[in-house]
Amino acid sequence: DSNRTLLVLPGDGIGPEVMNEVRKVIAWMGKKRAVGFDIKEDAVGGAALDKHGLPVSDDTVKAALEADAVLFGSVGGPKWDTLPFEKKPERGLLRLRKEMDLFANLRPAKVFDALVDASTLKPEIVKGLDIMIIRELTSGVYFGEPRGIKTLPNGEREGVDTQRYTSGEIRRVCAVAFELARKRQNKVCSAEKANVMHTGVLWRDEATKLHKESYGDVQLSHMYADALAMQLLRWPHQFDVIVTDNLFGDILSDEASMLTGSLGMLPSASLGAPDATGRRKALYEPIHGSAPDIAGKGIANPLAETMSYAMMLRYSFDLSSEADLVERAVENVLAAGYRTADLLTGGLDDKAAAAKGLKKVGTQEMGDAIVKEL
Amino acid sequence: DSNRTLLVLPGDGIGPEVMNEVRKVIAWMGKKRAVGFDIKEDAVGGAALDKHGLPVSDDTVKAALEADAVLFGSVGGPKWDTLPFEKKPERGLLRLRKEMDLFANLRPAKVFDALVDASTLKPEIVKGLDIMIIRELTSGVYFGEPRGIKTLPNGEREGVDTQRYTSGEIRRVCAVAFELARKRQNKVCSAEKANVMHTGVLWRDEATKLHKESYGDVQLSHMYADALAMQLLRWPHQFDVIVTDNLFGDILSDEASMLTGSLGMLPSASLGAPDATGRRKALYEPIHGSAPDIAGKGIANPLAETMSYAMMLRYSFDLSSEADLVERAVENVLAAGYRTADLLTGGLDDKAAAAKGLKKVGTQEMGDAIVKEL
Ligand SMILES: CC(C)[C@H](C(=O)O)[C@@H](O)C(=O)O
Ligand SMILES: CC(C)[C@H](C(=O)O)[C@@H](O)C(=O)O
Repeated sequence: DSNRTLLVLPGDGIGPEVMNEVRKVIAWMGKKRAVGFDIKEDAVGGAALDKHGLPVSDDTVKAALEADAVLFGSVGGPKWDTLPFEKKPERGLLRLRKEMDLFANLRPAKVFDALVDASTLKPEIVKGLDIMIIRELTSGVYFGEPRGIKTLPNGEREGVDTQRYTSGEIRRVCAVAFELARKRQNKVCSAEKANVMHTGVLWRDEATKLHKESYGDVQLSHMYADALAMQLLRWPHQFDVIVTDNLFGDILSDEASMLTGSLGMLPSASLGAPDATGRRKALYEPIHGSAPDIAGKGIANPLAETMSYAMMLRYSFDLSSEADLVERAVENVLAAGYRTADLLTGGLDDKAAAAKGLKKVGTQEMGDAIVKEL
Repeated sequence: DSNRTLLVLPGDGIGPEVMNEVRKVIAWMGKKRAVGFDIKEDAVGGAALDKHGLPVSDDTVKAALEADAVLFGSVGGPKWDTLPFEKKPERGLLRLRKEMDLFANLRPAKVFDALVDASTLKPEIVKGLDIMIIRELTSGVYFGEPRGIKTLPNGEREGVDTQRYTSGEIRRVCAVAFELARKRQNKVCSAEKANVMHTGVLWRDEATKLHKESYGDVQLSHMYADALAMQLLRWPHQFDVIVTDNLFGDILSDEASMLTGSLGMLPSASLGAPDATGRRKALYEPIHGSAPDIAGKGIANPLAETMSYAMMLRYSFDLSSEADLVERAVENVLAAGYRTADLLTGGLDDKAAAAKGLKKVGTQEMGDAIVKEL
């Protein structure tokens, strides 16, 4: 037993499979490093729809609010695709983000040396890349009112979404970016469309003010979101920390993660504000989705979920050396040639892969390799 | 004299320089192919601010509405950067788009064989790429009301932008996409965030309906905008025509154009609805900006503006063989090794470039080479 509480939400598709491998790492940590957790597990997304008729139940939300951290798998699949907007599996995730007030979404885009060839970009453009995107996660057009679809007097339909940001919402997420930059290359690039959107004007203004007031030691630049989408491809090494709103963050972080060529490797953390004791509500999830096409086949890559667990050790429990251990084990296993199918690009068959010193493994073998390496 | 009227708006930065080279091509067409224009010229953007105190004057808007086509350069520069929102040079462009009702923005992302190495992506990923992005250009969050910044009772400020789309606005731009696809690979991918935004739900629904009603022969697929940002990098050849809203189109088309590695090459067309005679209002502009850092140095690449003129011949005046002539001249000049500085990647000096059979040229030399090739 321990005083660390963890809620595990495997979700749909490959979520449960990859979570099983992380359980092995959790068990190893408990036994060998005395890092234990009180673990609760629950359904979310399609699994919760099947069980409770809702993409996340009130009880699950309550458990998430009480836990020290939530480890999330992935949600969605063809079975629930035709449900109306408010019942889709994704709403479970969006509700958790909102009710836990997880306003800062940290999405690293890191290129592993062993995987540099997996990128569709030239190696000289992406080698050694290490960008951190901070995406605002609880406001903007994802949640602003009014929103909906109505019929106009002329018989046409009209859809409406509203993007709202307050100065406080902008400042708190920019503060996270500045703080993180101080522990990295000390550079923040803030992205918006201040040439077109009023929320963009406010965003640029508040980022500039906060920078002047409290973070003058950090380098701050501003870029329009469209220009940033270009610059990420032109010369990604120019970036250290990028901070942006919910919708731009959704698109730009997906673009950035594709630079690495290995979505199956990338974790994310979603953090709330620190309470009186310094503790932040937090949810960790891989950036990949539920991948229904390969679910249940035992071939999914469990490393993004494993790295999400490592991020949790670091950000929620201040266990940096344990997080380092896990991350190093992942790097070593890759360097030793272990590859799940998604990391074998160019359709190498088993023989061709072997000739290159690579070993094609399934989900469980990869999990076992990590534990062995630990 | 001719019955074709053309309004030329060179704008700011490199706009006037690259427009000068296009004038040479226009003159050649008049002399050798009897393709003449009644040309008016006017100021826009910063140049118009300096002259009239407005980023576009009412007279210029009137002239644009009367012309058969507008050939646009680029706007903006440091001199006008600190102006308030409503006075920025970009507002001139946005006002023209809105008042001319140019709802369909065609942005080709094409990789020239001679320039395949200029891309930061691997040649096997981008060689032969030819995507057409159709971006809705007169609605969405760019123009929706209410919008602005106000102070809340608690002293914080709040910014608001509104995304609105009607079924008619969605249908007319999707129709342009389907029509164009029929002349290409017959495939349309429609992008939105129907999992998060109500305008996205309406967009998907209307695209699907229109497809069923009138374009069943075209292949239609749907993709979330964030997934599309990934897929553009993973395997861009999967796309033929992409249709999306104003804001997603802004970002995704910039990303797509960067795949080609040569922004200095890419034109765009912005089209209105056909009138009773089948004539569409139209504005043609390069996708590159005003590039104030290199303006006035005689090194800007005039080919994007030249290709914009070719698009104008094709879409506004049905002069396909003349458009082909211009496009072929551009390809031949590139194949012959002519390169402006932006196309010489990896910082080749003049000697190294010569060793590769490339010839570094300035703006005027490139313009002259095109005319000579014609
Ligand atoms: C599943 C979806 C609602 C979600 C989002 O748009 O935020 C996803 O794309 C993400 O980035 O986590
Ligand atoms: C200059 C700016 C207002 C414009 C836009 O956002 O539409 C530009 O980025 C474009 O894509 O033409």
